[in-house]
Amino acid sequence: MSKLTKVRFGMIGGGEGAFIGAVHRHAAALDGQFELVCGAFSRDATNNQNTADALGVADNRIYASWQDLLQGESLLPESERMELLVIVTPNQLHVPISRAALMAGFHVFCEKPAGISLAETQALATDLANTDRLYGLAHTYLGYPMVWQARQLVQSGELGTLRKIFVEYPQGWLTDDLEAAANKQASWRTDPSQAGNSGCMADIGTHAFGLAEFISQQQITEICAELKSHVAGRRLDDDGAALFRTSGGASGVLIASQICAGEENALKIRLYGDKGGLEWQQMEPNTIVLRPHGAPVKVLRAGRGQPGLGIEALRRCRLPAGHPEGYLEAMANLYSDFAVAIRRGERGTPSGVPGIDAGLRGMAFIETVSRSGHSDDKWLLLPPTTY
Amino acid sequence: MSKLTKVRFGMIGGGEGAFIGAVHRHAAALDGQFELVCGAFSRDATNNQNTADALGVADNRIYASWQDLLQGESLLPESERMELLVIVTPNQLHVPISRAALMAGFHVFCEKPAGISLAETQALATDLANTDRLYGLAHTYLGYPMVWQARQLVQSGELGTLRKIFVEYPQGWLTDDLEAAANKQASWRTDPSQAGNSGCMADIGTHAFGLAEFISQQQITEICAELKSHVAGRRLDDDGAALFRTSGGASGVLIASQICAGEENALKIRLYGDKGGLEWQQMEPNTIVLRPHGAPVKVLRAGRGQPGLGIEALRRCRLPAGHPEGYLEAMANLYSDFAVAIRRGERGTPSGVPGIDAGLRGMAFIETVSRSGHSDDKWLLLPPTTY
Amino acid sequence: MSKLTKVRFGMIGGGEGAFIGAVHRHAAALDGQFELVCGAFSRDATNNQNTADALGVADNRIYASWQDLLQGESLLPESERMELLVIVTPNQLHVPISRAALMAGFHVFCEKPAGISLAETQALATDLANTDRLYGLAHTYLGYPMVWQARQLVQSGELGTLRKIFVEYPQGWLTDDLEAAANKQASWRTDPSQAGNSGCMADIGTHAFGLAEFISQQQITEICAELKSHVAGRRLDDDGAALFRTSGGASGVLIASQICAGEENALKIRLYGDKGGLEWQQMEPNTIVLRPHGAPVKVLRAGRGQPGLGIEALRRCRLPAGHPEGYLEAMANLYSDFAVAIRRGERGTPSGVPGIDAGLRGMAFIETVSRSGHSDDKWLLLPPTTY
Amino acid sequence: MSKLTKVRFGMIGGGEGAFIGAVHRHAAALDGQFELVCGAFSRDATNNQNTADALGVADNRIYASWQDLLQGESLLPESERMELLVIVTPNQLHVPISRAALMAGFHVFCEKPAGISLAETQALATDLANTDRLYGLAHTYLGYPMVWQARQLVQSGELGTLRKIFVEYPQGWLTDDLEAAANKQASWRTDPSQAGNSGCMADIGTHAFGLAEFISQQQITEICAELKSHVAGRRLDDDGAALFRTSGGASGVLIASQICAGEENALKIRLYGDKGGLEWQQMEPNTIVLRPHGAPVKVLRAGRGQPGLGIEALRRCRLPAGHPEGYLEAMANLYSDFAVAIRRGERGTPSGVPGIDAGLRGMAFIETVSRSGHSDDKWLLLPPTTY
Repeated sequence: MSKLTKVRFGMIGGGEGAFIGAVHRHAAALDGQFELVCGAFSRDATNNQNTADALGVADNRIYASWQDLLQGESLLPESERMELLVIVTPNQLHVPISRAALMAGFHVFCEKPAGISLAETQALATDLANTDRLYGLAHTYLGYPMVWQARQLVQSGELGTLRKIFVEYPQGWLTDDLEAAANKQASWRTDPSQAGNSGCMADIGTHAFGLAEFISQQQITEICAELKSHVAGRRLDDDGAALFRTSGGASGVLIASQICAGEENALKIRLYGDKGGLEWQQMEPNTIVLRPHGAPVKVLRAGRGQPGLGIEALRRCRLPAGHPEGYLEAMANLYSDFAVAIRRGERGTPSGVPGIDAGLRGMAFIETVSRSGHSDDKWLLLPPTTY
Repeated sequence: MSKLTKVRFGMIGGGEGAFIGAVHRHAAALDGQFELVCGAFSRDATNNQNTADALGVADNRIYASWQDLLQGESLLPESERMELLVIVTPNQLHVPISRAALMAGFHVFCEKPAGISLAETQALATDLANTDRLYGLAHTYLGYPMVWQARQLVQSGELGTLRKIFVEYPQGWLTDDLEAAANKQASWRTDPSQAGNSGCMADIGTHAFGLAEFISQQQITEICAELKSHVAGRRLDDDGAALFRTSGGASGVLIASQICAGEENALKIRLYGDKGGLEWQQMEPNTIVLRPHGAPVKVLRAGRGQPGLGIEALRRCRLPAGHPEGYLEAMANLYSDFAVAIRRGERGTPSGVPGIDAGLRGMAFIETVSRSGHSDDKWLLLPPTTY
Repeated sequence: MSKLTKVRFGMIGGGEGAFIGAVHRHAAALDGQFELVCGAFSRDATNNQNTADALGVADNRIYASWQDLLQGESLLPESERMELLVIVTPNQLHVPISRAALMAGFHVFCEKPAGISLAETQALATDLANTDRLYGLAHTYLGYPMVWQARQLVQSGELGTLRKIFVEYPQGWLTDDLEAAANKQASWRTDPSQAGNSGCMADIGTHAFGLAEFISQQQITEICAELKSHVAGRRLDDDGAALFRTSGGASGVLIASQICAGEENALKIRLYGDKGGLEWQQMEPNTIVLRPHGAPVKVLRAGRGQPGLGIEALRRCRLPAGHPEGYLEAMANLYSDFAVAIRRGERGTPSGVPGIDAGLRGMAFIETVSRSGHSDDKWLLLPPTTY
Repeated sequence: MSKLTKVRFGMIGGGEGAFIGAVHRHAAALDGQFELVCGAFSRDATNNQNTADALGVADNRIYASWQDLLQGESLLPESERMELLVIVTPNQLHVPISRAALMAGFHVFCEKPAGISLAETQALATDLANTDRLYGLAHTYLGYPMVWQARQLVQSGELGTLRKIFVEYPQGWLTDDLEAAANKQASWRTDPSQAGNSGCMADIGTHAFGLAEFISQQQITEICAELKSHVAGRRLDDDGAALFRTSGGASGVLIASQICAGEENALKIRLYGDKGGLEWQQMEPNTIVLRPHGAPVKVLRAGRGQPGLGIEALRRCRLPAGHPEGYLEAMANLYSDFAVAIRRGERGTPSGVPGIDAGLRGMAFIETVSRSGHSDDKWLLLPPTTY
């Protein structure tokens, strides 16, 4: 066994007052595989410096802009230079930074959605194909062990032929007009110039969509949606629902809403086939409720060494059953797989991590669901994604 | 206080092997307000006799057909004659029997849906308006105390302005081709000549629809649906979902399915307004989860004398909180209110019991959702019901 | 099949303001097997008359006292006379009325506990042995289908050799000094002259005890208890806990308390053997959580025709899974079995109904746990009950 | 703001195949406050080297024994030398290593229990008092935000005067004779020479005990226990239960068992006062069920910025409500507080971290509960702990 050396990473965004930047740092730290070496955490110089100090980033590795960071790091000797760039900015910068970073020779781990349009994301995909670098997309929920177990149950035929998929993500935090109150998270997410053409669907609808395709291993092919903005003056959708059909002949419903007062992050998926059904909820992530047709419900539980779990679920558990692992552990699973992929010299999409395909699918979904929300046509096609 | 005399009732349908007939008899019996005096329980003479014997119905009050029953009872002295007719046949007989019974001077309590078409149900409504009799529709779930409590919470503004309604009724019992196996319940429900033009939506979609309108006190005005039949050869829908909009500006999703393998009777409704949300589930009927916006979730519990409950919920509880009441008790609440209405000489719809309005709304829903299921138009109007 | 004739019953106690009398009447009515023909519902004449009127009891069958009732009914022709006497008085009258009723030739269904001392209950047992009548004890919880299923799981070895039994019954309704506020239920239950020498343990500790012995099919042989009265001036225990050992080598803990603020009727039992464990809760009575050792948890559900349930559970379900049955249905199961036993001419203990054995065990428990509560000896023997 | 420098720590124990060592490393890493610089992970040289390599520990900081580690680190310049020693060995080494480490000038964070006897732990306490170093005890569960919230609810009088405390920790993993199968975790925990005189009570009974005293802010003063070993040949208790009384006049029950087949880590506590009750469960750690007397149940939820939470709970949350945090995060909270305490130059017990007091109480509990398990005296005193 060779001696571990940590993967050096830098971060764009994630200054004081941000939410997801800290999530990435905790997750990268958890398994001891990464070391934060540089950052451009905020365009506000004080915030940038304070964030860097609190994180122990050396002064000569604090950058005023993402362009400076890419340039500065490129000049460093390879043994010091960051290897991976983590992008936790508002959406409109995702693709520009990702492309520049890949071109500069860095691996990229970017927050979702991949960008603000399918077209720019396709350009990113083309760039990626022309490098030997890795690109990951931070669909955190796809790091949960029991999401992988659900996928395996479908794959192994435990549910039979899939007939129905219900996926929902109700939140309540945008019930009020937070953007009017200058809430940082709300402001950029409801601003088309930063978030793109969709609010709720881009922010959490993509999670629901991605989860459904990931577990079912089917593509959603047709969509019939209604989108709404419930708060006066809000510029992007804060709520929506869609009927859908899949490539494998199943049908389903997708709900995403940020104005379901009192809800936290109640992402939940249910799938039913002709042999049984299953249910997984993000807020109780260590449990799958498996409903075999005509037999008692079984409750599958995450846990290291837990009998009956598949290999993909097992290797994502750190603790025996009954000591809960959560959201940061799910994200950390993505980071750990990313570290392995870097060490192995993989290219394109790191094994075990959502990548450019997930990004393209998500963008295609956002564009189709948004068009459907404004369309009088009942069903809109969501074509298979190619690049 | 005057001495109680029980309301005499007869029953059409509900012979051995049926499901809902026994439910009605248990429910009618529970509070000691009713006495079963006659019946035409089955067209099979042996079944009819056996059922009557097991129930203690006198031989001279057993009838070979519903027509015989109406005629025979009409000839009896008023003090002996049945007062109320309970109809628990397949759907295609609901309206013909209801109309004849009303015309013959009997009160009617009929299983849902009210009929097999809106048109025939409107004719029934006209008949009813021309009598001094009562007509009730057995929407059992509207007898649950916490359904009334939910309605009151909405009415009192606890949730603010309603924005979203999610209502779902997943069952799994039609996952297989039970009608091919001559399952009695499955056979008539999937036979258009007995069930009408809809299977799942008529059978349980109406429950979801009725619950949503009852609690929200808004009418559903537009529907966009997909209906499916998942089992080869099945003649009516066994599954469906619809986006909808309401008269009060809310939007929502309605799901009804009988092929969700492993599900029992998981009827559930969630409503969200700008001040909070609430959730009620039929399988845990004594609980409402109330989610005030920006404050901890509250769990409201049914129970006699329970502090904080409204009068409508309280008067439907027999037991203190923690001794569960269930489905039969909910149906019994409808029966008890029906008895009161009879004694008071009410006419039309008995207070506290779903009546012809619910029947008309249900039929309008079934017809609209079925049309939508076959339509390429995105939104179909569900007009306000008049007669 | 012969024509059903209902069993005629009378009731002592259960006037307006009482709790358990109405429970018995609902339960007796539910399955249509019983008819209330007489009563001495209250020593208050107005209450007695009003109760009788509301229940439709004929004026000549309303009695001023239990003695009058026994005498009056004895004089009636056998075809009119009550067959079964239901006793729902405070505890101190249970044995005197039971003995007199049996001697007068009536079957008896009595509220628990059987009496206020083991000695008087043994005298009752002797009387019963000398008649051909039936005696049942209203341990309602033993009418739940899933309690029988739990018993069967133990019996069939599903849990292996039993090691641990945890049974608890926390309530909160005596948190305050309700007896000072003249609450009727609280007053007699905390009055030694009416309740006997124990409050909480006699009232609900017996339920926990009886459930543990019923499901485990083992006798509790040793007890080490602490009893307390938490409200100043309260004369009987309102709370207690006991370590115990059983005839089969298991050990466990029994908790019963009426001062657990905020609790309803949270009766719960868990049993663990060397092959698995199970859990049942009264407030979710249609579910057993089965925990096979080394395999996923299974959730067993009550329901008519439910695959995997034993015959004893199945025959106590009226409805398919997912339409909840509750407390009244559990009590109704005892009544229905009592009706069968009467028709079959059984004597002693009606099949399927707790009887004098349960009564004697309960009294032995109450006396032993109360002595233990005042004793410095660690373990007190609870001898096998004989009579 | 000054630049963060990480706290350097070393570890004794925690080699491949161990459980809790990795937990400590994840937890120390999560918030980016610690850096692992040295270790003696195993007495097996290959295991020691492999573990170190996988963790990136430099070869010159890998030590063959804990004595070597203390000596070797002492010789390093202060800027390199480890600051904190983490001890994750079997119990019999806890005190010897802790004392030596403190004497050598290192802070100590030790797994529980503090030692194998109260006497040796008192000697440790004396040593600690004579240094300016910090000593923390890894009672992980006391790092959960909602445990602090529960404590605050008690402190603020939300429950009124405490009457009852029920605390239980059922596990199932020792249902079989794992030590015979050479399971590493089972072997040392059931070996008196490594675990001390108690198995289950030392391993998890202490968690239940510590949680009860922490939340209630009362000391347990009297104990009446039964301890058992259910597996033939097992040398230490694998199961036990105790009645107890507290300094504040409450009484309660403590259950700890490792042979409850099918249970994971179901640590749960309920407290009841005259104004209400609360419940917390380790397996759903982000929720407190609060039961105000006479009002609806409230569900309090952990989360950054969550309204209604106290400062102690809030500062232990990294994520908004609905993104679950778990066991590693709880332990990480202890580590982060330890880092702060080191930087502030605290001595004795680090603020926010269980320390020597918790250690002494735990040892006193283990000794008393073990004596009680073998005693015929009903109540044994558990004296207030002094040193």
